[in-house]
Amino acid sequence: MEHVVILGAGFGGLYAARALRREPVRVTVVDRRNHHTFQPLLYQVATAGLNASDIAAPIRRVLRKQKNTSVLLAEATAIDPAQKKVIFEDGELGYDRLILAAGASHSYFGHDEWAAFAPGLKTVEDALEIRRRVLLAFEAAERELDPARRSAWLTFVVVGAGPTGVELAGALSELARHTLVREFRHINPCKARIILLEGAGQVLPSYVPELGEKARKQLEALNVDVRTGCLVTGIDEEGVSIGDRRIEARTVLWGAGVAASGVARTLGVPLDRAGRVLVQPDLTVPGHEDIYVVGDLASLKQEDGTPVPGVAPAAIQEGRHAARNIARTLRGQPRLPFRYRNRGSMATIGRAAAVADFGRLKLSGFLAWLAWLIIHVLFLIGFRNRFMVLFSWAVSYLTYQRASRLITGETPRLLEEEHRRAPELEPRKDDGAARSQPIPEHART
Amino acid sequence: MEHVVILGAGFGGLYAARALRREPVRVTVVDRRNHHTFQPLLYQVATAGLNASDIAAPIRRVLRKQKNTSVLLAEATAIDPAQKKVIFEDGELGYDRLILAAGASHSYFGHDEWAAFAPGLKTVEDALEIRRRVLLAFEAAERELDPARRSAWLTFVVVGAGPTGVELAGALSELARHTLVREFRHINPCKARIILLEGAGQVLPSYVPELGEKARKQLEALNVDVRTGCLVTGIDEEGVSIGDRRIEARTVLWGAGVAASGVARTLGVPLDRAGRVLVQPDLTVPGHEDIYVVGDLASLKQEDGTPVPGVAPAAIQEGRHAARNIARTLRGQPRLPFRYRNRGSMATIGRAAAVADFGRLKLSGFLAWLAWLIIHVLFLIGFRNRFMVLFSWAVSYLTYQRASRLITGETPRLLEEEHRRAPELEPRKDDGAARSQPIPEHART
Repeated sequence: MEHVVILGAGFGGLYAARALRREPVRVTVVDRRNHHTFQPLLYQVATAGLNASDIAAPIRRVLRKQKNTSVLLAEATAIDPAQKKVIFEDGELGYDRLILAAGASHSYFGHDEWAAFAPGLKTVEDALEIRRRVLLAFEAAERELDPARRSAWLTFVVVGAGPTGVELAGALSELARHTLVREFRHINPCKARIILLEGAGQVLPSYVPELGEKARKQLEALNVDVRTGCLVTGIDEEGVSIGDRRIEARTVLWGAGVAASGVARTLGVPLDRAGRVLVQPDLTVPGHEDIYVVGDLASLKQEDGTPVPGVAPAAIQEGRHAARNIARTLRGQPRLPFRYRNRGSMATIGRAAAVADFGRLKLSGFLAWLAWLIIHVLFLIGFRNRFMVLFSWAVSYLTYQRASRLITGETPRLLEEEHRRAPELEPRKDDGAARSQPIPEHART
Repeated sequence: MEHVVILGAGFGGLYAARALRREPVRVTVVDRRNHHTFQPLLYQVATAGLNASDIAAPIRRVLRKQKNTSVLLAEATAIDPAQKKVIFEDGELGYDRLILAAGASHSYFGHDEWAAFAPGLKTVEDALEIRRRVLLAFEAAERELDPARRSAWLTFVVVGAGPTGVELAGALSELARHTLVREFRHINPCKARIILLEGAGQVLPSYVPELGEKARKQLEALNVDVRTGCLVTGIDEEGVSIGDRRIEARTVLWGAGVAASGVARTLGVPLDRAGRVLVQPDLTVPGHEDIYVVGDLASLKQEDGTPVPGVAPAAIQEGRHAARNIARTLRGQPRLPFRYRNRGSMATIGRAAAVADFGRLKLSGFLAWLAWLIIHVLFLIGFRNRFMVLFSWAVSYLTYQRASRLITGETPRLLEEEHRRAPELEPRKDDGAARSQPIPEHART
């Protein structure tokens, strides 16, 4: 039996594996994590609305009934197309057919030094790191006595107004204005500023201008400060620069560029500017018809000249198509070209706020949000997750509460930093005499 | 208004804060974490049954309606009783009355070098670390070709058969034998060995022998290898030594000793052997009637000469009692001595298996488990948690599935270690010729 290796268990890889379950092949799914992540809901983990395990399922569990498939926890460092091998740091794995679905991570457009100050949102770890920074920022603001520093802790900048940026900005605003609002004594979380920066001229640049405008209105109704046509020129620990202008902000989140997984470079085939593999219409790599590339790692133009977008439905369709082409090859049939069927796109902004584009049907507001909710929950893998997510959401919707507000990790790093920086600022330094504690005016409401 | 500082938001501190909510004092609750942890259910997080946020609630949220109370995220390094100050690394906080509820962590009986190899279970971070090690051990076993090494990956040793150790051992057995059983292709998780070591002569040494014996029987029914009268003399990366005997095990968990928080040492008052403060019957510190100590940090003998046990109900009662004594002092009334009311003790072993001692009424098996479940879920703080936990449990009970099986953290450390140690062992090293993959005999069932 031929051995099909699938590298990466995101949407592309997982759906490819599923499509091979009844084919006469032996399948090995390799991923460096033990779980498949439902990336469209990661922003909910980052903003404390959902648990990490609500939106991530163990790959073994998802594929446990698929007898021809095994799962391997390992990180590939290279592909050797001549020897037909995937190389790990500590070993290698031979294949007859390879489906490369290793995905993408963030791109800081040549400014990798920004990564430390502006985490992106691709993995569960990213989401937990963002959650940690956001929650610690409010804690630090509560302890801070200097108004300018307090204001910098309460300023949150999201760079990039694509779907991820829009979702993060909207959810941050709701977290500050509804969830945290009564819990602090010295700050008013409502005063938190959420600033969404976008280089292009509209919010959601990949959407039609009409929906971009509606998204902007809905964001502004949530008190998000939306600034389009703003190219970020610098990010550091203290804030963001846009040319001469400066925003003092201790929390900056990155929702802008993506960069293809580095493993593609080891193939020795032509890549596009973002490092993605220029695949042939049947999704194989030029010169290596036993290697398929799917998902965010594949670069393919549609018949109308536009690229297949880097979204989950495209990855799913490509994964299935690669599996189908492998099955056809084994039966001696020719491979078919891939055609992306665009079933619509949508972005959520907040509670009952979203935009959706189903071609002729364009929705915004509550209806778009409901469509978004139903489709995303239905696509979650595994019954329990689906039910738990829906239940969590119902509770959040009714109570404005967010369930997963733990700050984990032994040391609150950001706080420590601040304290090293400003040892003279002491929290509530009462001496025996001054026993009534001054509470800032703005927090008394 | 007097300023009451409560150090630590475990059971003792949190219930003290709640009991002060209508008193004419200003309360500050200080904790180095932003969440209160429901420690009795931590073992469920460690064995992937519950999410961390199911059993932990943000302290701010729990106390948000209590207008006289603020919450501070900070780690105390010392107490200065003369100046009436709590000292942090980066500041200090004055108090009029102090309730010290900083709790305890693990004690390795003078062998702190064991900590790296045998994590204990006191915090959410501990639980996530144990979960990570346990799940990675099965992943490593799946990749391992050498039978002896594979067997070491599949051997789990729990040191200490108190309630925590018993719960961990039982839950590990269920994880291996029910949850993971169909998901691996090269190992049979049922073959995992769970070994529970106890220095004393019985399981649950603090319980009556009759219940200890019943607990042992229930553990053995779950295939746990229970060994009493076994004093561990060494723990390293590869296993556990008991005198001349040796158990090769890559995963060792620590459920044995506890050590009081170090902050007690800075008080300059007499401590007991475990580092706990020897408090007076009214829970104040000798010579400092403005300082109360409650929970695991307090050492107090009952009238019959036995110590107040280090359990959650005792901490809750002490926290409330300290608050009551502060209120009485402010009203000019004398402080009252603390009396522990033992409402019973219970330990759970697994699905429908537990022991409970309510004095005359002693239960084991399903009834004890039901009592345990009801009491623990009722005590969980916050409606949503309670409901979610009950729901998670119902699903686990019916399906044997465990929801929270994520391995997070960028690098699977244990695996990397193993690979550095054994670079010659490659995962499924297929060459082009050998296309049929050998599957170990024992995994074919």
